[in-house]
Amino acid sequence: MEQLAFGEILEAEKRIRPFLRETPLEKSIYLSGGGRNVFLKLECQQPVRAFKIRGALNKILSLPKEAQKEGVAAVSSGNHGIAVAYVSRLLGMKPATVIVPVNTPDSKIEKIRYYGAQVLLMGDCFDEAEALGMAYIREKGYRFIDGWDKDRMVYAGQGTVGLEIMRQNPQIDMILAPVGGGGLCTSTATAAKGIRPNVRVGAVYSEACRAWEASVRDGRAYHAFPGKDSICEAMVGGIGELSYAMHDRVDDGFAVKEENIRKAMLHAVAREKIVAEAAGAAPIAALLQYGERILGKNIALIISGGNADNRILAEEFAKTLG
Amino acid sequence: MEQLAFGEILEAEKRIRPFLRETPLEKSIYLSGGGRNVFLKLECQQPVRAFKIRGALNKILSLPKEAQKEGVAAVSSGNHGIAVAYVSRLLGMKPATVIVPVNTPDSKIEKIRYYGAQVLLMGDCFDEAEALGMAYIREKGYRFIDGWDKDRMVYAGQGTVGLEIMRQNPQIDMILAPVGGGGLCTSTATAAKGIRPNVRVGAVYSEACRAWEASVRDGRAYHAFPGKDSICEAMVGGIGELSYAMHDRVDDGFAVKEENIRKAMLHAVAREKIVAEAAGAAPIAALLQYGERILGKNIALIISGGNADNRILAEEFAKTLG
Repeated sequence: MEQLAFGEILEAEKRIRPFLRETPLEKSIYLSGGGRNVFLKLECQQPVRAFKIRGALNKILSLPKEAQKEGVAAVSSGNHGIAVAYVSRLLGMKPATVIVPVNTPDSKIEKIRYYGAQVLLMGDCFDEAEALGMAYIREKGYRFIDGWDKDRMVYAGQGTVGLEIMRQNPQIDMILAPVGGGGLCTSTATAAKGIRPNVRVGAVYSEACRAWEASVRDGRAYHAFPGKDSICEAMVGGIGELSYAMHDRVDDGFAVKEENIRKAMLHAVAREKIVAEAAGAAPIAALLQYGERILGKNIALIISGGNADNRILAEEFAKTLG
Repeated sequence: MEQLAFGEILEAEKRIRPFLRETPLEKSIYLSGGGRNVFLKLECQQPVRAFKIRGALNKILSLPKEAQKEGVAAVSSGNHGIAVAYVSRLLGMKPATVIVPVNTPDSKIEKIRYYGAQVLLMGDCFDEAEALGMAYIREKGYRFIDGWDKDRMVYAGQGTVGLEIMRQNPQIDMILAPVGGGGLCTSTATAAKGIRPNVRVGAVYSEACRAWEASVRDGRAYHAFPGKDSICEAMVGGIGELSYAMHDRVDDGFAVKEENIRKAMLHAVAREKIVAEAAGAAPIAALLQYGERILGKNIALIISGGNADNRILAEEFAKTLG
């Protein structure tokens, strides 16, 4: 597949900016130190609490006007579904249909419903939900909004995170992004390197799902990938076709322990005073786990979403009570 | 004392805007309903996690250039001190001196220190810290930045919250603000009514400290006020002289139970996915406790700060584990 061009991301930004505010890039008091500045890109402060609104906005706004009036459908681990539902309501479209795996946190399902979409639970994990959901969507004849695999408009929208980071702080020389399908990470790399070619980008994934690592190692995109049980429902499953086509834009990969992701989620609330979901906290976990092995003087961590599972927060806070 | 004029707040906004971003006014999915829309004004997303940055910026920027080069001093329950320390560093001034009571949460003290200020712990509560701190500041000859009592520049800065709310949603007809000294509440009322005279403003305070209620009832400002033990360190103590002079701009008062403030803090993290400190969560608590007695179709709750005490969050989350 042809790689995404920097220009496609610039066009996306023009299209979605009227509907989107810029999220802050904030220096972390607690993670900076030792000659290193660490900044948090707070996508967890999006109204839907996830960066996914960027891709959904760009895709849906670029549909023909006629198609915009009809409803659309999505398969999602949660956040893409929330984003599609939110954008459908924002633009006055028919309610969306969103298919999610059974293990999706209630908080995410509630939000999809709140924005007026119909939620269907299918399959025990994302890969299963996708197989079942795609068959259903084809049968019904719905217009499908791909959240991760290969839609250029969706990828271009996600890439606007990278534009914002480099404009907010042109000194950034390393960006860590969580990898689920890889769209956020590879599109951000495209945007950031379009502004500063030498910036490094690191992919962060859970030890429980090494689809990124395996795809890069084996020279092929694992579209589905068997993961272990994970608290990162947004990070398990396979790698997108378009994301794989851009894997050479990503300089490093960091597998983080689930235990460290939990600690990072607690750190986010207790210290930074923000709410980060597991995938959103993963870049913090990478910094905690890999320390000096993370290169860069001015590091941006993409806190990709804030729809944290409350049970995990409760369990981690409980450990502090002693 | 002469009341604050709408024009003073407009001037403040011009002065501080280059250093300040507008915080979001976000509709709450969970608190809206029954024909009522509830919006959260997210001052907890300020870089210092509190609205106090507004007053500190306006005051310090309006000092003569010579004075800006010297250091300043403040007495604070925490957030005003963080704001003064932050602004001092932002403007390249000498480090500030901040006096806080002994019961100030560690998270707040750490932040004041991080921004380079010297922290002195004095007294068991805010009123005691103030008495001791003022004597110390006079002795040292420091320039004092009053955070709550009667500094017009500080009040005018805080009032910019009200300008933002009414511009972000001109339909707002009720605003609930927490009351410590009363500066945020009365200045916001001044700003909001300068744009929409019929908007109602409600003061929210803990049952543990009814200084506002008593001052209004007795027709005098209780500058110091004995409170009970409270989780709201930012809301105990007396009422400001300037705030009292504007009490007729506040339409209602709501005393909330500490237990409901705790529930509201949990609600903020678990549902809204934001971190609100006790005072910041108090308007949510008022809505939970008073329900329909809170008038208005489009209600803005000022989430005044996010520097939550982690122990309270841990205790409330623990209750959810069953």
